[in-house]
Amino acid sequence: MIEIDNNSKTPVYEQIYAQLRQQIIAGELPKGSRLSPTRTFAKDYHLSRNTVLSAYMQLQSEGFIKSIQGSGFYVEELPEYKDVNHSEKQKTFKNCEQEKPRYDFRYGLIEPNIYNIRGFRKAMKSAWDILEDRQALYDDDPQGLFSLRQAICEHLAQERGVEADPRYLLITSGHHYSLQLITSLLSKDEYTFFMEEPGHQDSREVFRKEGYKVYPLYVDENGAIISRLKDIHNAIVYVTPSHQFPTGYILPIGRRMKLLEWARNNNGYIIEDDYDSQLRYKERPIPSLHSLDQNERVIYFGSFSKSLSSDLRVSYVLLPPALKLLFDEDRSYLNSSVSSFIQLTLSEYLHSGEYQRRINSIRNLYRKKHNLIIDFFKNNYDDSIKIYGAGGGTHLLLEIATDLKKEEIIKRFLQNDIGVYPCDIYWADKTKAKDNQILIAYSGIRLEELNEYLLQMKKVLDQIINKSNIMKKR
Amino acid sequence: MIEIDNNSKTPVYEQIYAQLRQQIIAGELPKGSRLSPTRTFAKDYHLSRNTVLSAYMQLQSEGFIKSIQGSGFYVEELPEYKDVNHSEKQKTFKNCEQEKPRYDFRYGLIEPNIYNIRGFRKAMKSAWDILEDRQALYDDDPQGLFSLRQAICEHLAQERGVEADPRYLLITSGHHYSLQLITSLLSKDEYTFFMEEPGHQDSREVFRKEGYKVYPLYVDENGAIISRLKDIHNAIVYVTPSHQFPTGYILPIGRRMKLLEWARNNNGYIIEDDYDSQLRYKERPIPSLHSLDQNERVIYFGSFSKSLSSDLRVSYVLLPPALKLLFDEDRSYLNSSVSSFIQLTLSEYLHSGEYQRRINSIRNLYRKKHNLIIDFFKNNYDDSIKIYGAGGGTHLLLEIATDLKKEEIIKRFLQNDIGVYPCDIYWADKTKAKDNQILIAYSGIRLEELNEYLLQMKKVLDQIINKSNIMKKR
Repeated sequence: MIEIDNNSKTPVYEQIYAQLRQQIIAGELPKGSRLSPTRTFAKDYHLSRNTVLSAYMQLQSEGFIKSIQGSGFYVEELPEYKDVNHSEKQKTFKNCEQEKPRYDFRYGLIEPNIYNIRGFRKAMKSAWDILEDRQALYDDDPQGLFSLRQAICEHLAQERGVEADPRYLLITSGHHYSLQLITSLLSKDEYTFFMEEPGHQDSREVFRKEGYKVYPLYVDENGAIISRLKDIHNAIVYVTPSHQFPTGYILPIGRRMKLLEWARNNNGYIIEDDYDSQLRYKERPIPSLHSLDQNERVIYFGSFSKSLSSDLRVSYVLLPPALKLLFDEDRSYLNSSVSSFIQLTLSEYLHSGEYQRRINSIRNLYRKKHNLIIDFFKNNYDDSIKIYGAGGGTHLLLEIATDLKKEEIIKRFLQNDIGVYPCDIYWADKTKAKDNQILIAYSGIRLEELNEYLLQMKKVLDQIINKSNIMKKR
Repeated sequence: MIEIDNNSKTPVYEQIYAQLRQQIIAGELPKGSRLSPTRTFAKDYHLSRNTVLSAYMQLQSEGFIKSIQGSGFYVEELPEYKDVNHSEKQKTFKNCEQEKPRYDFRYGLIEPNIYNIRGFRKAMKSAWDILEDRQALYDDDPQGLFSLRQAICEHLAQERGVEADPRYLLITSGHHYSLQLITSLLSKDEYTFFMEEPGHQDSREVFRKEGYKVYPLYVDENGAIISRLKDIHNAIVYVTPSHQFPTGYILPIGRRMKLLEWARNNNGYIIEDDYDSQLRYKERPIPSLHSLDQNERVIYFGSFSKSLSSDLRVSYVLLPPALKLLFDEDRSYLNSSVSSFIQLTLSEYLHSGEYQRRINSIRNLYRKKHNLIIDFFKNNYDDSIKIYGAGGGTHLLLEIATDLKKEEIIKRFLQNDIGVYPCDIYWADKTKAKDNQILIAYSGIRLEELNEYLLQMKKVLDQIINKSNIMKKR
């Protein structure tokens, strides 16, 4: 608790500073504790965020607290001997190249590298030629290049059963910006936000940071539990129906229909994130939720991050007509946020038919990787490792029969130069996350090397799996 | 006025629909009148925006009103014989290639085309090579590529006296997104926004649309009138001190110091938009406001839109440390919005020294164009055409001694296949704008062709300039 005296001659920020400082010195705020976010603090005490920040900055410059990117302010060790001048500037520069494990199962990597693919190189060349010849380069549409939008719509119609009209399609500079676009159209004062739990952490974060009331929509083995939405009005619901992230479950048709019905009757909007739907390895891709929607309630999210490369920074959003009108009213003076070169390259690539070929070829390649991994675990581990999310996509969830804590599991892998990733980040409520689940992605690993990766992994798994389970196997 | 009965069984949106429909049929809302924006309407009647939108959409689908991008909803001609089905979808598709006048003095064009420049092509090649060799492409920093930020900072230090630390620099996907970044850090509930009047219309628009209270900061022949800020606290002030947009005035040192002092004493932040400062044709570039700032109150905006090409979609923002902390707390989970390819290309280009050469070369080229135009008007028109904004940049304001209305002036030029542009868009208060001012930009016109452009222009000018003025000249 901080006491603030508005009648005092001491400025408010100094009052905050002095009291926090006192609490740190007294040990009431021990090393590592997190201070309230400036936004929350300001709200609780009816102050401006700047006032709180001034206090925090003073504490930081004296070395009492430090700011950690994306996380907040944390109490430091008592700064008796700390050098608080600027000499350490150099050290805190972020490194360009972070060290990465040799055997990295990181999510979001894609191999083969798009910049090495003949068809894509050709598209880049051709975009370049077009730009060379155009005297006037400036021809900007806030929704993105029309020819690219057209190509995407044709692709969606063919592949995803999505009846897409380029007038309602917007090109964005990535998934986060697609989400921010929605927050700009559907106000936090009118809508709450329901997010799959577990679910894509960044999507939750965007809405949370924008100030929405965020509620969990729990996931069972049939995907999101739609009945939870009963009696909820005016809400945005975020789902990954074709391959729930991260569990990999598929939303069955019954729930899909219920979800659409709910949206129609309760002024709901559904964000369908169709992030890796084209990568199914046994059956045909699952039809999109959008293709079932009769009432213009589905906002369809697509991206090139899983099929080409995430560092192109291109996603797209298909808006229902009502939201497109709001966009026209409010945002259509904005410039496109994607460079002409990248848009033209993609447009050329899609129109050439090479994109479709790429999808088919990575689907075949990833299927081989996927099957290799599944077989590997089946042959070596039986029920001591449970696999979630098989059948599609670029990642798997492994549940390991071990009593080790999450941190320890990750550490053991890292000691063997292996990158595997904890799953608790996908839960808003971390207590619900299981310690023994890890996420591995395989899209970035060369097929020829995958076996080596798995053997390396086996070394660690054999150490950490509970003896009782290993016994069973033998 | 609309009357809403909350106890009625008729849904509210239907009540709105019915009354507006009646007003249109009765002629109370004649063809061309603009309906209240949904946001305003909703606020005035304490409704949700969606309710209002539903009413508007119903009216639109019946052909009573139509939506115009970026502007709002307008009453149509009475729809007696109108075909309201979807058959006209095709027609309303935006054309990819808009028709442009042969002699186009449009702002924002740049010649020579960057994609034809050897140094830039080399940088693109080299970015491509780097990406081909990187197995893992994904290495994303929300602030942008570190090597690019470093290169920009070195450039700013050398050219603009800006002491820039790459840790405080953010790469954005264009000017609008730089502005939106600021709106996400400095809340509309805490800060008002002061905008140069006249000034860059889109910058005003971003803050207006985000809900800020927007006030004019009038401009005289010494740039923005700073004394207007007396007794104003907690405000963001947008200025273009090196070359006021669009008038071209330069903010003198006295006003600069006053502005900085005001910011320090009143919790003010200054956005210094340094958009074309390197393009001075007589004297050396004017030192930036940022270089004078002792109190971390200046937010420095830069861009490659005037030196390379606006369709690269790359700008940058140098934040004061306090705002960088807010960014770290709130936004640092976001991905960068600019593709690696574009960032790497720029990084290679800047590090190679070619960027500096480009600046020098276009400065020399634009000086020639600038002088040609100034001489042309001096030799031909004397005081019947006043020129504002000479000495730098890529555009000029012409004040023509004519009694014709703005629309008529533009039309006469267009009839001769010439694109010149009205200036009233730069005024928030259109009544303050002069009808006889037009903006012409020359950066996109080849030097060899410029004379032909001017001669074409002369044909129209000789028609429209008031006889009395022409007499004087003779």
